[in-house]
Amino acid sequence: MYSFEQLYQIFSEELGKQNFTKNPKELYEPIVYTLSQSGKRLRPIFTLMACDLFGGDIYKSIPQALAIELLHNFTLIHDDIMDEAPLRHGQETVHTRWNQKLAILAGDTLYALAYRYVMQSNIESLPAILETFNNTALEACEGQQMDINFENLDVVSKDDYILMSNYKTAALFGASMCIGAIIGEAPEEDVELLSLYGRNLGMAFQLRDDLLDLYGEQKDFGKKTGLDIIENKKTYLFVAAMERADNETKKQLWSCYHDPQVGPEKKIAKVKAIFDRLNIETVTNEAIESYVNKSLESLEKVNRPKEDKVILEKLAKQMVSRKK
Amino acid sequence: MYSFEQLYQIFSEELGKQNFTKNPKELYEPIVYTLSQSGKRLRPIFTLMACDLFGGDIYKSIPQALAIELLHNFTLIHDDIMDEAPLRHGQETVHTRWNQKLAILAGDTLYALAYRYVMQSNIESLPAILETFNNTALEACEGQQMDINFENLDVVSKDDYILMSNYKTAALFGASMCIGAIIGEAPEEDVELLSLYGRNLGMAFQLRDDLLDLYGEQKDFGKKTGLDIIENKKTYLFVAAMERADNETKKQLWSCYHDPQVGPEKKIAKVKAIFDRLNIETVTNEAIESYVNKSLESLEKVNRPKEDKVILEKLAKQMVSRKK
Repeated sequence: MYSFEQLYQIFSEELGKQNFTKNPKELYEPIVYTLSQSGKRLRPIFTLMACDLFGGDIYKSIPQALAIELLHNFTLIHDDIMDEAPLRHGQETVHTRWNQKLAILAGDTLYALAYRYVMQSNIESLPAILETFNNTALEACEGQQMDINFENLDVVSKDDYILMSNYKTAALFGASMCIGAIIGEAPEEDVELLSLYGRNLGMAFQLRDDLLDLYGEQKDFGKKTGLDIIENKKTYLFVAAMERADNETKKQLWSCYHDPQVGPEKKIAKVKAIFDRLNIETVTNEAIESYVNKSLESLEKVNRPKEDKVILEKLAKQMVSRKK
Repeated sequence: MYSFEQLYQIFSEELGKQNFTKNPKELYEPIVYTLSQSGKRLRPIFTLMACDLFGGDIYKSIPQALAIELLHNFTLIHDDIMDEAPLRHGQETVHTRWNQKLAILAGDTLYALAYRYVMQSNIESLPAILETFNNTALEACEGQQMDINFENLDVVSKDDYILMSNYKTAALFGASMCIGAIIGEAPEEDVELLSLYGRNLGMAFQLRDDLLDLYGEQKDFGKKTGLDIIENKKTYLFVAAMERADNETKKQLWSCYHDPQVGPEKKIAKVKAIFDRLNIETVTNEAIESYVNKSLESLEKVNRPKEDKVILEKLAKQMVSRKK
């Protein structure tokens, strides 16, 4: 079995070999820029891992891992426009560095390029891979719309939040595993189990992201903590707090989010004080653990030797404690 | 053989049967709105026609015809944002009626939905259809970028204009025919010939569009004539004029496009006077005829009975004289 680090290395090399320096150069510059940013590459590595677990040749799953990474980057570029985000991982977003028109078109192009890689499957697995890939892209769009809808809502239920995250984030984690398993020629039940493993891990990932935004160390996380609060984001912390708060606390929380007089630092401090009082850090950590446990339960049932599953087990457990 | 009108009817009915009223409803409203606008539906009908020509069951090509129509509408929504167009065919564009964020996301969703239809091919023809569809989507993005680049150029060569139109517009006409022919199980040479027929017809379509913008009757064309001039678009008329003009006329044309003092009506009149002096209407009509002739030459070589090709022959000839 390959280690995570080996797969990261292999994937990065393969990504580096792709030639995206094409004409019209104005269009491909932001694509090269986006893809060269050293993200965690979690999703494509999931694909390689799933393939590896079933003894598949991981190099056969490289095109699909690339497709996953391109799809992910397409959603980032477009989401950043919609969220009016100036930075991502400390780097200027595409619409900030260039302009919005180009960011729209570069995103579209990445999405179209992604399908070129999806297509590089053998004919037997193409329909299943295509369907998974496609459904995920659609869920990402629908999840993003739900997230946008949340901006105009005072209250968002935990169920709605979970549905949104499931579509916007977790689906792609599930699909990454699913597609890798298909290429590794896993039996259908195992494909299903690994998809679930990925999807629940994706949920844990998103909740951990929400948690780190406020409770993470800025030096680890790489961005200013508390940004979600400043932007009035309906994160898991917020929906969990709203669920646990009494009417008086709800009012306080609501007024923190809606009082334009309160400066950003003070707003973060006030909201954090309420979250702390409601034990939100613990509550969120429990939810993360619960998703990780669901992941592990699915993994347990996958019909592969226990020792081959260790790497995925470790990966899931790391999701509970990751710092960035 | 089905007539154009019959195919229009059948396609419209099939499109009407599709259920795009889904959740989140905010996302699907603009999709329903866009698809319900009664365009010419030229591209999906091309697909049905090509299938019909080879004796294929046209209903088998309905999913791909839908995919083509969705892809086309995706490009329209995103192009309209980039072009800052308030109206399309007299109706508010999606970003005007709703907002830009939603227009980006509705476009993305249409594109993802398009692939759902592409997938509904039999397994033997799926790779070829997917490749054609994909290449076309990429060419549309690249062509749009070339078009955007033209905005900042004083001079655009005719060759560059033709390359741009070929990518931005004609590729999809070619792909529509190509995919229909594949589903109709046409031999490879005939698929190629019909693709060429479609692509050249697409070029004729674009040049006719450019021509009608200035020389069309407003009542037929449905939009104000001369808009391209007001927007400083590098149309075929413009590039042909620049090619034919002496230095003095080039300067005049250039100053018409760059003098902010000249009001829109006067600008149109001045530019039109130069175009008239250079015989641009005739020159453009000759170019259109030349593309239509290339289409007819390809059609001629397609190995089908002459009487079955009459409908495509008629369609090509209509491209020379279409008024809207």
